[in-house]
Amino acid sequence: MVRAFEYPKKQHNTVKRYNDRGTYQLGPIHSVINNSPVVHVSFTPGPEDRFPAILPMIGVMASYDYPSSTIDEPLDCYLHGYVSSRLMRLARDSEKGLPVCISATKVDGLVLSLTPNSHSYNYRSAVLQGYARPVEEVKEKVWAMEQITNKVVPDRWRHSRVPPDNVEMTSTMILRVQIETGSGKVRHGEPHDEAKDLDREDVTSSVWTGVVPVYETFGEPVPAATNKVKETPLYISSYAKEATISNREQALEAVKE
Amino acid sequence: MVRAFEYPKKQHNTVKRYNDRGTYQLGPIHSVINNSPVVHVSFTPGPEDRFPAILPMIGVMASYDYPSSTIDEPLDCYLHGYVSSRLMRLARDSEKGLPVCISATKVDGLVLSLTPNSHSYNYRSAVLQGYARPVEEVKEKVWAMEQITNKVVPDRWRHSRVPPDNVEMTSTMILRVQIETGSGKVRHGEPHDEAKDLDREDVTSSVWTGVVPVYETFGEPVPAATNKVKETPLYISSYAKEATISNREQALEAVKE
Repeated sequence: MVRAFEYPKKQHNTVKRYNDRGTYQLGPIHSVINNSPVVHVSFTPGPEDRFPAILPMIGVMASYDYPSSTIDEPLDCYLHGYVSSRLMRLARDSEKGLPVCISATKVDGLVLSLTPNSHSYNYRSAVLQGYARPVEEVKEKVWAMEQITNKVVPDRWRHSRVPPDNVEMTSTMILRVQIETGSGKVRHGEPHDEAKDLDREDVTSSVWTGVVPVYETFGEPVPAATNKVKETPLYISSYAKEATISNREQALEAVKE
Repeated sequence: MVRAFEYPKKQHNTVKRYNDRGTYQLGPIHSVINNSPVVHVSFTPGPEDRFPAILPMIGVMASYDYPSSTIDEPLDCYLHGYVSSRLMRLARDSEKGLPVCISATKVDGLVLSLTPNSHSYNYRSAVLQGYARPVEEVKEKVWAMEQITNKVVPDRWRHSRVPPDNVEMTSTMILRVQIETGSGKVRHGEPHDEAKDLDREDVTSSVWTGVVPVYETFGEPVPAATNKVKETPLYISSYAKEATISNREQALEAVKE
Protein backbone atom coordinates (compact mmCIF):
# COMPACT_ATOMS: atom_id res chain seq x y z
CA MET A 1 0.00 0.00 0.00
CA VAL A 2 1.33 3.41 -0.94
CA ARG A 3 1.46 5.84 1.94
CA ALA A 4 -0.03 9.25 1.07
CA PHE A 5 2.04 12.02 2.62
CA GLU A 6 0.16 14.29 5.00
CA TYR A 7 0.94 17.68 6.50
CA PRO A 8 1.29 17.58 10.29
CA LYS A 9 -1.81 18.79 12.16
CA LYS A 10 -0.86 21.79 14.24
CA GLN A 11 -2.89 24.32 16.13
CA HIS A 12 -2.98 26.80 13.26
CA ASN A 13 -3.81 24.46 10.39
CA THR A 14 -6.34 22.10 11.94
CA VAL A 15 -9.68 22.19 10.14
CA LYS A 16 -12.20 22.63 12.92
CA ARG A 17 -15.61 22.66 11.29
CA TYR A 18 -17.07 20.13 8.87
CA ASN A 19 -13.86 18.25 9.49
CA ASP A 20 -14.97 15.42 7.23
CA ARG A 21 -14.31 17.98 4.49
CA GLY A 22 -10.77 18.60 5.72
CA THR A 23 -7.72 17.02 4.18
CA TYR A 24 -4.05 17.09 5.07
CA GLN A 25 -2.88 15.04 2.10
CA LEU A 26 -0.20 16.72 0.04
CA GLY A 27 -1.62 15.62 -3.34
CA PRO A 28 -5.06 17.28 -3.20
CA ILE A 29 -3.67 20.41 -1.49
CA HIS A 30 -0.83 20.91 -4.01
CA SER A 31 -3.23 20.26 -6.94
CA VAL A 32 -5.49 23.16 -5.94
CA ILE A 33 -2.49 25.52 -5.92
CA ASN A 34 -1.22 24.27 -9.30
CA ASN A 35 -4.68 24.45 -10.90
CA SER A 36 -5.43 28.00 -9.75
CA PRO A 37 -4.15 30.75 -12.08
CA VAL A 38 -3.79 33.05 -9.06
CA VAL A 39 -3.02 32.40 -5.39
CA HIS A 40 -3.45 34.93 -2.57
CA VAL A 41 -0.40 35.48 -0.40
CA SER A 42 -0.73 37.06 3.02
CA PHE A 43 2.03 38.42 5.26
CA THR A 44 2.43 40.82 8.16
CA PRO A 45 4.15 43.96 6.87
CA GLY A 46 5.57 44.98 10.25
CA PRO A 47 4.83 45.47 13.93
CA GLU A 48 3.54 48.99 13.28
CA ASP A 49 0.93 47.80 10.72
CA ARG A 50 -2.53 46.96 11.98
CA PHE A 51 -3.57 45.10 8.85
CA PRO A 52 -2.11 41.99 7.26
CA ALA A 53 -1.35 42.45 3.53
CA ILE A 54 -2.55 40.24 0.67
CA LEU A 55 -0.98 40.05 -2.79
CA PRO A 56 -2.35 38.08 -5.73
CA MET A 57 0.54 36.09 -7.25
CA ILE A 58 1.28 33.12 -9.51
CA GLY A 59 2.19 30.04 -7.47
CA VAL A 60 3.63 26.66 -8.47
CA MET A 61 4.41 23.66 -6.28
CA ALA A 62 7.71 22.12 -7.41
CA SER A 63 11.04 20.84 -6.14
CA TYR A 64 14.34 22.14 -7.50
CA ASP A 65 16.42 19.63 -5.56
CA TYR A 66 14.19 16.68 -6.53
CA PRO A 67 12.70 17.76 -9.89
CA SER A 68 11.12 14.34 -10.47
CA SER A 69 8.98 14.66 -7.32
CA THR A 70 5.30 14.01 -7.92
CA ILE A 71 2.44 16.27 -6.77
CA ASP A 72 1.88 14.19 -3.59
CA GLU A 73 5.46 14.50 -2.37
CA PRO A 74 7.03 17.33 -0.33
CA LEU A 75 7.39 20.40 -2.57
CA ASP A 76 8.24 24.08 -2.26
CA CYS A 77 5.93 26.83 -3.46
CA TYR A 78 7.51 29.19 -6.01
CA LEU A 79 5.81 32.58 -6.19
CA HIS A 80 5.99 35.21 -8.88
CA GLY A 81 4.32 38.58 -9.01
CA TYR A 82 4.96 42.05 -7.85
CA VAL A 83 7.39 41.76 -4.94
CA SER A 84 7.52 45.20 -3.30
CA SER A 85 10.83 46.43 -1.99
CA ARG A 86 9.30 46.12 1.48
CA LEU A 87 8.31 42.47 0.96
CA MET A 88 11.70 41.73 -0.59
CA ARG A 89 13.50 43.29 2.39
CA LEU A 90 11.34 41.34 4.85
CA ALA A 91 11.98 38.06 3.01
CA ARG A 92 15.70 38.68 2.64
CA ASP A 93 16.40 39.98 6.11
CA SER A 94 14.56 37.47 8.28
CA GLU A 95 16.75 34.54 9.20
CA LYS A 96 14.33 31.71 8.33
CA GLY A 97 12.41 33.69 5.71
CA LEU A 98 9.20 35.72 5.95
CA PRO A 99 6.21 33.81 7.38
CA VAL A 100 3.50 33.79 4.69
CA CYS A 101 0.13 32.18 4.23
CA ILE A 102 -0.81 31.08 0.68
CA SER A 103 -4.39 30.31 -0.26
CA ALA A 104 -6.32 29.23 -3.34
CA THR A 105 -9.92 28.15 -3.88
CA LYS A 106 -11.62 26.53 -6.89
CA VAL A 107 -15.41 26.78 -6.99
CA ASP A 108 -17.00 23.76 -8.72
CA GLY A 109 -20.69 24.52 -8.21
CA LEU A 110 -23.46 26.52 -6.56
CA VAL A 111 -25.31 24.22 -4.16
CA LEU A 112 -28.94 25.33 -3.80
CA SER A 113 -30.89 23.71 -0.98
CA LEU A 114 -34.35 24.29 0.48
CA THR A 115 -33.28 26.89 3.03
CA PRO A 116 -30.59 29.59 2.75
CA ASN A 117 -28.62 28.17 5.70
CA SER A 118 -27.86 24.92 3.87
CA HIS A 119 -26.74 26.68 0.70
CA SER A 120 -23.11 26.02 -0.12
CA TYR A 121 -20.54 25.77 -2.86
CA ASN A 122 -18.88 22.70 -4.20
CA TYR A 123 -15.24 23.72 -3.87
CA ARG A 124 -11.66 22.72 -3.28
CA SER A 125 -9.51 25.01 -1.18
CA ALA A 126 -5.91 24.95 0.00
CA VAL A 127 -4.03 26.92 2.63
CA LEU A 128 -0.26 26.63 3.07
CA GLN A 129 1.97 28.28 5.65
CA GLY A 130 5.68 28.61 5.24
CA TYR A 131 8.78 30.77 5.06
CA ALA A 132 9.45 32.87 1.94
CA ARG A 133 12.92 33.74 0.71
CA PRO A 134 13.97 35.30 -2.59
CA VAL A 135 15.58 32.87 -5.05
CA GLU A 136 19.09 34.24 -5.60
CA GLU A 137 20.91 31.43 -7.36
CA VAL A 138 20.80 31.96 -11.15
CA LYS A 139 20.23 28.31 -12.16
CA GLU A 140 17.37 27.85 -9.71
CA LYS A 141 15.84 31.18 -10.75
CA VAL A 142 15.79 30.27 -14.46
CA TRP A 143 14.32 26.87 -13.57
CA ALA A 144 11.62 28.53 -11.43
CA MET A 145 10.80 30.99 -14.24
CA GLU A 146 10.30 27.98 -16.51
CA GLN A 147 7.90 26.34 -14.01
CA ILE A 148 5.92 29.56 -13.72
CA THR A 149 5.72 30.19 -17.49
CA ASN A 150 4.64 26.59 -18.11
CA LYS A 151 1.96 27.00 -15.47
CA VAL A 152 0.33 29.76 -17.54
CA VAL A 153 0.35 27.49 -20.63
CA PRO A 154 2.02 24.06 -20.49
CA ASP A 155 5.16 23.88 -22.67
CA ARG A 156 5.15 27.65 -23.31
CA TRP A 157 8.71 28.24 -22.06
CA ARG A 158 10.57 26.43 -24.84
CA HIS A 159 8.27 28.00 -27.45
CA SER A 160 9.11 31.55 -26.37
CA ARG A 161 12.25 33.68 -26.59
CA VAL A 162 14.56 32.17 -23.97
CA PRO A 163 16.85 32.33 -22.08
CA PRO A 164 16.07 35.60 -20.26
CA ASP A 165 18.78 38.23 -20.67
CA ASN A 166 20.61 39.92 -17.78
CA VAL A 167 18.13 42.78 -17.46
CA GLU A 168 15.22 40.31 -17.33
CA MET A 169 16.98 38.16 -14.75
CA THR A 170 17.57 41.15 -12.49
CA SER A 171 14.09 42.62 -12.84
CA THR A 172 12.32 39.32 -12.08
CA MET A 173 11.73 38.42 -8.45
CA ILE A 174 10.82 34.91 -7.40
CA LEU A 175 10.14 33.76 -3.87
CA ARG A 176 10.63 30.19 -2.70
CA VAL A 177 8.36 29.24 0.18
CA GLN A 178 9.49 26.36 2.35
CA ILE A 179 6.19 24.88 3.46
CA GLU A 180 5.79 24.29 7.19
CA THR A 181 2.26 23.02 7.09
CA GLY A 182 -0.96 23.06 5.11
CA SER A 183 -4.53 21.98 4.95
CA GLY A 184 -7.27 21.63 2.38
CA LYS A 185 -11.03 21.49 2.30
CA VAL A 186 -13.21 19.80 -0.28
CA ARG A 187 -17.00 19.96 -0.56
CA HIS A 188 -18.78 17.99 -3.23
CA GLY A 189 -22.13 16.40 -3.74
CA GLU A 190 -25.76 17.39 -3.74
CA PRO A 191 -27.54 19.79 -1.40
CA HIS A 192 -28.04 18.38 2.10
CA ASP A 193 -31.41 19.33 3.51
CA GLU A 194 -32.77 18.61 6.93
CA ALA A 195 -35.81 16.44 7.63
CA LYS A 196 -37.64 19.46 9.05
CA ASP A 197 -37.72 20.93 5.51
CA LEU A 198 -37.77 17.72 3.43
CA ASP A 199 -40.96 16.70 5.30
CA ARG A 200 -42.82 19.89 4.42
CA GLU A 201 -44.68 19.47 1.16
CA ASP A 202 -45.35 23.22 0.83
CA VAL A 203 -41.56 23.72 0.85
CA THR A 204 -40.47 20.84 -1.41
CA SER A 205 -43.18 21.59 -3.96
CA SER A 206 -42.06 25.19 -4.39
CA VAL A 207 -38.26 25.32 -3.87
CA TRP A 208 -36.03 23.93 -6.63
CA THR A 209 -32.90 22.25 -5.26
CA GLY A 210 -29.78 21.15 -7.06
CA VAL A 211 -26.36 22.23 -8.22
CA VAL A 212 -25.29 24.77 -10.84
CA PRO A 213 -21.87 23.54 -12.08
CA VAL A 214 -19.17 26.25 -12.22
CA TYR A 215 -15.94 25.95 -14.19
CA GLU A 216 -13.19 28.02 -15.75
CA THR A 217 -13.39 28.19 -19.53
CA PHE A 218 -10.51 29.04 -21.87
CA GLY A 219 -11.82 30.68 -25.02
CA GLU A 220 -10.52 30.76 -28.58
CA PRO A 221 -6.99 32.30 -28.53
CA VAL A 222 -6.93 35.87 -29.96
CA PRO A 223 -3.70 36.74 -31.86
CA ALA A 224 -1.94 40.02 -30.99
CA ALA A 225 -1.79 42.83 -33.58
CA THR A 226 1.98 42.26 -33.76
CA ASN A 227 1.73 38.45 -34.03
CA LYS A 228 3.45 37.03 -37.14
CA VAL A 229 2.72 33.30 -36.67
CA LYS A 230 -0.18 32.37 -38.92
CA GLU A 231 -1.81 29.50 -37.05
CA THR A 232 -2.32 29.20 -33.32
CA PRO A 233 0.14 26.47 -32.28
CA LEU A 234 -1.46 23.21 -31.13
CA TYR A 235 0.14 23.28 -27.66
CA ILE A 236 -1.91 26.47 -27.01
CA SER A 237 -5.21 25.67 -28.75
CA SER A 238 -5.39 22.10 -27.49
CA TYR A 239 -4.53 23.20 -23.95
CA ALA A 240 -7.39 25.74 -24.06
CA LYS A 241 -9.80 23.06 -25.28
CA GLU A 242 -8.65 20.21 -23.05
CA ALA A 243 -8.38 22.27 -19.86
CA THR A 244 -11.94 23.51 -20.42
CA ILE A 245 -13.24 19.98 -20.93
CA SER A 246 -11.40 18.72 -17.87
CA ASN A 247 -12.67 21.64 -15.72
CA ARG A 248 -16.22 20.98 -16.89
CA GLU A 249 -15.94 17.27 -16.12
CA GLN A 250 -14.57 18.05 -12.67
CA ALA A 251 -17.52 20.35 -11.94
CA LEU A 252 -20.02 17.69 -13.08
CA GLU A 253 -18.18 14.95 -11.19
CA ALA A 254 -18.38 17.11 -8.04
CA VAL A 255 -22.20 17.04 -8.19
CA LYS A 256 -22.12 13.28 -7.43
CA GLU A 257 -21.71 12.30 -3.81
CA MET B 1 -19.91 66.05 -13.49
CA VAL B 2 -20.39 63.15 -11.09
CA ARG B 3 -17.54 62.71 -8.66
CA ALA B 4 -16.38 59.09 -8.42
CA PHE B 5 -15.60 58.22 -4.81
CA GLU B 6 -12.05 57.07 -4.15
CA TYR B 7 -10.39 55.32 -1.21
CA PRO B 8 -7.72 57.45 0.48
CA LYS B 9 -4.16 56.56 -0.53
CA LYS B 10 -2.25 55.46 2.55
CA GLN B 11 1.08 53.81 3.04
CA HIS B 12 -0.34 50.28 3.13
CA ASN B 13 -2.72 50.47 0.17
CA THR B 14 -0.74 52.48 -2.37
CA VAL B 15 -0.17 50.53 -5.58
CA LYS B 16 3.56 50.90 -6.19
CA ARG B 17 4.31 49.05 -9.40
CA TYR B 18 2.61 49.41 -12.75
CA ASN B 19 0.70 52.17 -11.04
CA ASP B 20 -1.17 53.01 -14.23
CA ARG B 21 -2.95 49.75 -13.49
CA GLY B 22 -3.91 50.87 -10.00
CA THR B 23 -7.32 52.24 -9.09
CA TYR B 24 -8.75 53.67 -5.89
CA GLN B 25 -12.28 54.13 -7.21
CA LEU B 26 -14.93 52.46 -5.10
CA GLY B 27 -16.99 51.21 -8.09
CA PRO B 28 -14.42 48.96 -9.80
CA ILE B 29 -13.05 47.71 -6.46
CA HIS B 30 -16.47 46.81 -5.03
CA SER B 31 -17.49 45.15 -8.33
CA VAL B 32 -14.60 42.69 -8.18
CA ILE B 33 -15.66 41.63 -4.66
CA ASN B 34 -19.32 41.25 -5.65
CA ASN B 35 -18.48 39.31 -8.83
CA SER B 36 -16.17 36.82 -7.11
CA PRO B 37 -17.91 33.75 -5.65
CA VAL B 38 -15.17 33.54 -3.00
CA VAL B 39 -13.00 36.18 -1.31
CA HIS B 40 -9.89 35.46 0.75
CA VAL B 41 -9.85 37.00 4.22
CA SER B 42 -6.60 37.39 6.12
CA PHE B 43 -6.10 38.21 9.81
CA THR B 44 -3.45 37.87 12.46
CA PRO B 45 -4.55 35.16 14.89
CA GLY B 46 -2.51 36.46 17.82
CA PRO B 47 0.86 37.77 18.93
CA GLU B 48 2.11 34.21 19.53
CA ASP B 49 1.35 33.12 15.94
CA ARG B 50 4.09 33.46 13.36
CA PHE B 51 1.77 33.06 10.38
CA PRO B 52 -1.17 35.17 9.27
CA ALA B 53 -4.32 33.10 8.62
CA ILE B 54 -6.44 33.09 5.44
CA LEU B 55 -10.04 31.90 5.20
CA PRO B 56 -12.03 31.60 1.97
CA MET B 57 -15.44 33.25 2.57
CA ILE B 58 -18.44 34.69 0.73
CA GLY B 59 -18.29 38.49 0.64
CA VAL B 60 -20.83 41.12 -0.40
CA MET B 61 -20.48 44.90 -0.49
CA ALA B 62 -23.70 46.49 0.79
CA SER B 63 -25.03 49.11 3.17
CA TYR B 64 -27.61 48.29 5.84
CA ASP B 65 -28.05 51.90 6.90
CA TYR B 66 -28.33 53.17 3.30
CA PRO B 67 -29.70 50.14 1.40
CA SER B 68 -30.21 52.15 -1.78
CA SER B 69 -26.47 52.93 -2.03
CA THR B 70 -24.98 52.10 -5.40
CA ILE B 71 -21.80 50.07 -5.98
CA ASP B 72 -19.64 53.22 -6.25
CA GLU B 73 -20.70 54.62 -2.87
CA PRO B 74 -19.26 53.82 0.58
CA LEU B 75 -20.31 50.27 1.56
CA ASP B 76 -19.53 47.69 4.23
CA CYS B 77 -18.31 44.20 3.40
CA TYR B 78 -20.51 41.42 4.83
CA LEU B 79 -18.69 38.11 5.19
CA HIS B 80 -20.11 34.65 5.65
CA GLY B 81 -18.28 31.38 6.04
CA TYR B 82 -16.79 29.34 8.78
CA VAL B 83 -16.05 31.76 11.61
CA SER B 84 -13.90 29.85 14.11
CA SER B 85 -14.48 30.46 17.79
CA ARG B 86 -11.05 32.06 17.81
CA LEU B 87 -11.90 34.47 14.98
CA MET B 88 -15.26 35.25 16.59
CA ARG B 89 -13.58 36.00 19.94
CA LEU B 90 -11.01 38.25 18.26
CA ALA B 91 -13.73 40.14 16.34
CA ARG B 92 -15.98 40.48 19.35
CA ASP B 93 -13.35 41.41 21.92
CA SER B 94 -11.37 44.06 20.08
CA GLU B 95 -12.76 47.53 20.59
CA LYS B 96 -12.82 48.67 16.94
CA GLY B 97 -13.14 45.18 15.48
CA LEU B 98 -10.52 42.77 14.17
CA PRO B 99 -8.23 44.20 11.45
CA VAL B 100 -8.72 42.08 8.33
CA CYS B 101 -7.56 42.20 4.73
CA ILE B 102 -10.03 41.01 2.06
CA SER B 103 -8.89 40.13 -1.43
CA ALA B 104 -10.42 38.86 -4.67
CA THR B 105 -9.04 38.45 -8.17
CA LYS B 106 -10.80 37.74 -11.48
CA VAL B 107 -8.59 36.41 -14.28
CA ASP B 108 -9.84 37.51 -17.73
CA GLY B 109 -7.10 36.12 -19.96
CA LEU B 110 -3.66 34.57 -20.39
CA VAL B 111 -1.40 37.15 -22.04
CA LEU B 112 1.29 35.40 -24.10
CA SER B 113 4.12 37.60 -25.33
CA LEU B 114 7.42 36.91 -27.07
CA THR B 115 9.48 36.43 -23.94
CA PRO B 116 8.45 34.84 -20.59
CA ASN B 117 9.16 38.05 -18.67
CA SER B 118 6.42 39.97 -20.48
CA HIS B 119 3.84 37.22 -19.97
CA SER B 120 0.92 38.37 -17.85
CA TYR B 121 -2.74 37.90 -17.09
CA ASN B 122 -5.61 40.17 -17.95
CA TYR B 123 -7.17 40.53 -14.52
CA ARG B 124 -9.10 42.67 -12.06
CA SER B 125 -8.11 42.49 -8.41
CA ALA B 126 -9.32 44.18 -5.25
CA VAL B 127 -7.84 44.46 -1.77
CA LEU B 128 -9.79 45.98 1.14
CA GLN B 129 -8.66 46.61 4.69
CA GLY B 130 -11.03 47.17 7.53
CA TYR B 131 -12.36 46.18 10.93
CA ALA B 132 -14.52 43.07 11.30
CA ARG B 133 -17.24 42.72 13.93
CA PRO B 134 -19.92 40.03 14.24
CA VAL B 135 -23.41 41.19 13.26
CA GLU B 136 -25.49 40.79 16.43
CA GLU B 137 -28.70 42.66 15.67
CA VAL B 138 -31.37 40.25 14.37
CA LYS B 139 -32.84 42.51 11.67
CA GLU B 140 -29.45 43.36 10.21
CA LYS B 141 -28.40 39.70 10.36
CA VAL B 142 -31.46 38.51 8.40
CA TRP B 143 -30.89 41.32 5.89
CA ALA B 144 -27.22 40.31 5.50
CA MET B 145 -28.19 36.64 5.05
CA GLU B 146 -30.48 37.77 2.23
CA GLN B 147 -27.65 39.72 0.53
CA ILE B 148 -25.35 36.70 0.78
CA THR B 149 -27.94 34.20 -0.52
CA ASN B 150 -28.80 36.48 -3.43
CA LYS B 151 -25.12 36.77 -4.23
CA VAL B 152 -24.97 33.00 -4.86
CA VAL B 153 -27.97 33.26 -7.24
CA PRO B 154 -29.82 36.58 -7.67
CA ASP B 155 -33.34 36.47 -6.21
CA ARG B 156 -32.76 33.09 -4.53
CA TRP B 157 -33.72 34.26 -1.03
CA ARG B 158 -37.43 34.81 -1.61
CA HIS B 159 -37.64 31.56 -3.59
CA SER B 160 -36.30 29.48 -0.70
CA ARG B 161 -37.71 28.51 2.73
CA VAL B 162 -37.46 31.73 4.73
CA PRO B 163 -37.29 33.22 7.30
CA PRO B 164 -34.53 31.30 9.09
CA ASP B 165 -35.67 29.70 12.35
CA ASN B 166 -34.05 30.32 15.74
CA VAL B 167 -31.56 27.48 15.43
CA GLU B 168 -30.47 28.73 11.99
CA MET B 169 -30.13 32.30 13.24
CA THR B 170 -27.90 31.20 16.12
CA SER B 171 -25.73 28.86 14.07
CA THR B 172 -25.06 31.44 11.33
CA MET B 173 -22.20 33.87 11.84
CA ILE B 174 -21.87 36.99 9.76
CA LEU B 175 -19.11 39.56 10.00
CA ARG B 176 -19.52 43.19 9.01
CA VAL B 177 -16.27 44.81 7.93
CA GLN B 178 -16.09 48.57 8.14
CA ILE B 179 -13.72 49.42 5.31
CA GLU B 180 -10.83 51.70 6.16
CA THR B 181 -9.19 51.68 2.77
CA GLY B 182 -8.83 49.73 -0.43
CA SER B 183 -7.19 49.51 -3.80
CA GLY B 184 -7.65 47.70 -7.06
CA LYS B 185 -5.56 46.69 -10.03
CA VAL B 186 -6.72 46.12 -13.59
CA ARG B 187 -4.68 44.79 -16.51
CA HIS B 188 -6.24 44.50 -19.91
CA GLY B 189 -5.13 44.59 -23.48
CA GLU B 190 -2.73 42.77 -25.74
CA PRO B 191 0.77 41.52 -24.95
CA HIS B 192 3.35 44.31 -24.69
CA ASP B 193 6.63 43.31 -26.20
CA GLU B 194 9.84 45.27 -26.29
CA ALA B 195 11.55 46.52 -29.44
CA LYS B 196 14.54 44.28 -28.73
CA ASP B 197 12.28 41.26 -29.42
CA LEU B 198 9.84 42.78 -31.93
CA ASP B 199 12.82 43.65 -34.13
CA ARG B 200 14.12 40.08 -34.25
CA GLU B 201 12.61 38.21 -37.18
CA ASP B 202 13.79 34.82 -35.86
CA VAL B 203 11.74 35.51 -32.72
CA THR B 204 8.57 37.00 -34.26
CA SER B 205 8.42 34.31 -36.96
CA SER B 206 8.42 31.50 -34.39
CA VAL B 207 6.66 32.73 -31.24
CA TRP B 208 2.86 33.08 -31.33
CA THR B 209 1.63 36.03 -29.28
CA GLY B 210 -1.88 36.86 -28.17
CA VAL B 211 -4.45 36.37 -25.46
CA VAL B 212 -6.36 33.27 -24.36
CA PRO B 213 -9.64 34.59 -22.88
CA VAL B 214 -10.55 33.08 -19.47
CA TYR B 215 -14.02 33.22 -17.92
CA GLU B 216 -16.22 31.51 -15.37
CA THR B 217 -18.95 29.38 -16.93
CA PHE B 218 -22.16 28.31 -15.20
CA GLY B 219 -23.35 24.99 -16.60
CA GLU B 220 -26.81 23.45 -16.96
CA PRO B 221 -28.38 23.22 -13.45
CA VAL B 222 -28.49 19.61 -12.13
CA PRO B 223 -31.55 18.85 -9.96
CA ALA B 224 -31.00 17.13 -6.59
CA ALA B 225 -32.27 13.57 -6.06
CA THR B 226 -34.76 14.99 -3.54
CA ASN B 227 -35.89 17.88 -5.78
CA LYS B 228 -39.66 17.91 -6.42
CA VAL B 229 -39.94 20.97 -8.71
CA LYS B 230 -40.23 19.73 -12.29
CA GLU B 231 -38.68 22.56 -14.26
CA THR B 232 -35.62 24.59 -13.36
CA PRO B 233 -37.02 28.03 -12.48
CA LEU B 234 -36.15 30.80 -14.92
CA TYR B 235 -34.39 32.98 -12.31
CA ILE B 236 -31.81 30.16 -11.96
CA SER B 237 -31.46 28.99 -15.58
CA SER B 238 -31.39 32.47 -17.07
CA TYR B 239 -28.87 33.65 -14.46
CA ALA B 240 -26.58 30.73 -15.37
CA LYS B 241 -26.87 31.60 -19.07
CA GLU B 242 -26.64 35.36 -18.79
CA ALA B 243 -23.78 35.42 -16.28
CA THR B 244 -21.78 33.12 -18.56
CA ILE B 245 -22.42 35.34 -21.59
CA SER B 246 -21.50 38.46 -19.63
CA ASN B 247 -18.30 36.85 -18.24
CA ARG B 248 -17.33 35.78 -21.76
CA GLU B 249 -17.95 39.28 -23.14
CA GLN B 250 -15.88 40.80 -20.35
CA ALA B 251 -12.96 38.46 -21.13
CA LEU B 252 -13.13 39.32 -24.85
CA GLU B 253 -13.53 43.04 -24.14
CA ALA B 254 -10.41 42.84 -21.94
CA VAL B 255 -8.31 41.77 -24.95
CA LYS B 256 -8.82 45.21 -26.50
CA GLU B 257 -6.57 47.99 -25.28
